[in-house]
Amino acid sequence: MDVGADEFEQSLPLLQELVAGADFVGLDIEFTGLRSNLSRPQQISLFDLPSEWYLKTRQSVQQFTICQIGLSMFSSIEGESNKYVAHSCNFFLFPTTFGILDSEFSFQASSVQFLNQYGFDYNKFLKNGIPYMNEEQEKKIKHSILRGNWRVRSSLDKDQIKVVIDKVTQWLDLAEEGDQMTLPGIAGFQAFEVQLVLRQALPNIWTVLKEEWVIVKKVSQPQRWYLEHASCDQVSCWKEQILLSARGFSVFFQMLVKAQKPLVGHNMMMDLLHLHEKFFRPLPESYDQFKQNIHSLFPVLIDTKNVTKDIWKKV
Amino acid sequence: MDVGADEFEQSLPLLQELVAGADFVGLDIEFTGLRSNLSRPQQISLFDLPSEWYLKTRQSVQQFTICQIGLSMFSSIEGESNKYVAHSCNFFLFPTTFGILDSEFSFQASSVQFLNQYGFDYNKFLKNGIPYMNEEQEKKIKHSILRGNWRVRSSLDKDQIKVVIDKVTQWLDLAEEGDQMTLPGIAGFQAFEVQLVLRQALPNIWTVLKEEWVIVKKVSQPQRWYLEHASCDQVSCWKEQILLSARGFSVFFQMLVKAQKPLVGHNMMMDLLHLHEKFFRPLPESYDQFKQNIHSLFPVLIDTKNVTKDIWKKV
Repeated sequence: MDVGADEFEQSLPLLQELVAGADFVGLDIEFTGLRSNLSRPQQISLFDLPSEWYLKTRQSVQQFTICQIGLSMFSSIEGESNKYVAHSCNFFLFPTTFGILDSEFSFQASSVQFLNQYGFDYNKFLKNGIPYMNEEQEKKIKHSILRGNWRVRSSLDKDQIKVVIDKVTQWLDLAEEGDQMTLPGIAGFQAFEVQLVLRQALPNIWTVLKEEWVIVKKVSQPQRWYLEHASCDQVSCWKEQILLSARGFSVFFQMLVKAQKPLVGHNMMMDLLHLHEKFFRPLPESYDQFKQNIHSLFPVLIDTKNVTKDIWKKV
Repeated sequence: MDVGADEFEQSLPLLQELVAGADFVGLDIEFTGLRSNLSRPQQISLFDLPSEWYLKTRQSVQQFTICQIGLSMFSSIEGESNKYVAHSCNFFLFPTTFGILDSEFSFQASSVQFLNQYGFDYNKFLKNGIPYMNEEQEKKIKHSILRGNWRVRSSLDKDQIKVVIDKVTQWLDLAEEGDQMTLPGIAGFQAFEVQLVLRQALPNIWTVLKEEWVIVKKVSQPQRWYLEHASCDQVSCWKEQILLSARGFSVFFQMLVKAQKPLVGHNMMMDLLHLHEKFFRPLPESYDQFKQNIHSLFPVLIDTKNVTKDIWKKV
């Protein structure tokens, strides 16, 4: 099952159930690049100590990003030994862009070739990727959302918001109390952003979100006060909702951590570095600290590369 | 008309004709990012001198890439003054990946949002982008092609080539002289690369390219010698052909330069920096040198931003 931003929130309860019932979870991650083109002393060598490998790889992990995570939740079949049912999901991810956050990431041409070979759909990644953030970014966003004055970053956002305000202001001039208009094609964070800006700019309107439409209603000031303080639409609770949307895949990552299921992958060191950097915290400088963190997140890690090496040794 | 790698080579003659007949050429470029998130002293300021703006922008131009170039060839209608016919093409571009060349480029989340807003198709860019290179890269590639021993970069290429060699070797064991086999689904550079590797590895075969098929024929050594020295398949002429394919859009860029037509754009400084860096030479450190280069490439540049400013001043 492919899961993008459009499907993610509604699939969360099912995902939580699958993780809770799993015996172990299989993991495979696709990246926009593996190793940056570094000059000689920074290149990976077979003679690197693990800590040297870590420091060199850390740099590439900070530069490239995750475009897809494949997870398979394996649960045993009752009464049948060594038989499992697997539920697999492909999550397309895209770094959260919201307010002050405008991330940059690199693409490596050879990785693009690799992904092409397997029919990767870039539109799913770049147009409908699920947002995510690590704890540090979450702290920043939380701070700016709670202060209610995050800056609109890209010039497009500014233009779009200008167009929307102009449109609503023109309509408002002739509208009567109770009239409503709709703004089509606004979804996700943008819908939250547009609503917040409109509500801040115009004291005699109220906004409601309905699928990909923002509905604007002309209201009196007492009505507005009432709506703002109604239990289901208090700004504080609404802000929580925005943060939940912006955290996206990180919400699921935290579920996965909490479930403490064995995590199984093949040649998964790179995957673990990315999991740490993208959903937990920026990679520490110390390799020991990284190992400690990963083991506290996932106490049981099984890398099938090591398993096969071990079997080969015995053979 | 959308033009990707698949359509590019065959549309070159028509493009050359359109450019030759044009009175002026309109230009608009889309990028994967505009301005890198720089720390304070490196940020663009309204008070920057043009040379300061240039040095700061140069850094972003090196980091981001062109994903699409829109060109419109305007030619006047005979006998009607101030009336033009415009032929417009959208070229999807992707940096050449070939042998030693494995480029990295960045994406900026806000630019992705911008491109999404206009329905940009990332699959056309990342799966079917026309290759290109500047003079410096061309020199490197030429050198490695002429020496005939470029390294295969990505692990996928290595795997693919291993599979192909295994397949051909197995077939060769049982084949008789004159027999032939086909390798399907190999196009573009890869087809050249596969053929060169096969011809180098196996002395008693010959290869021919037919659309997306590489045809392998078992031949005797004298036949092989003859085919290698036949006028239409001399390795040197073949290598020229590879280089022509790898140069891709740069071939058309050079046509455009040679035609010396006025180039018209809106707010086109960024576009000019990218044209210089991607198709001509890496941007020089000196702003004056950049201006000199651009004017020798395109003697007549018309920026409609300056035109409108001028009209506003007069009004």
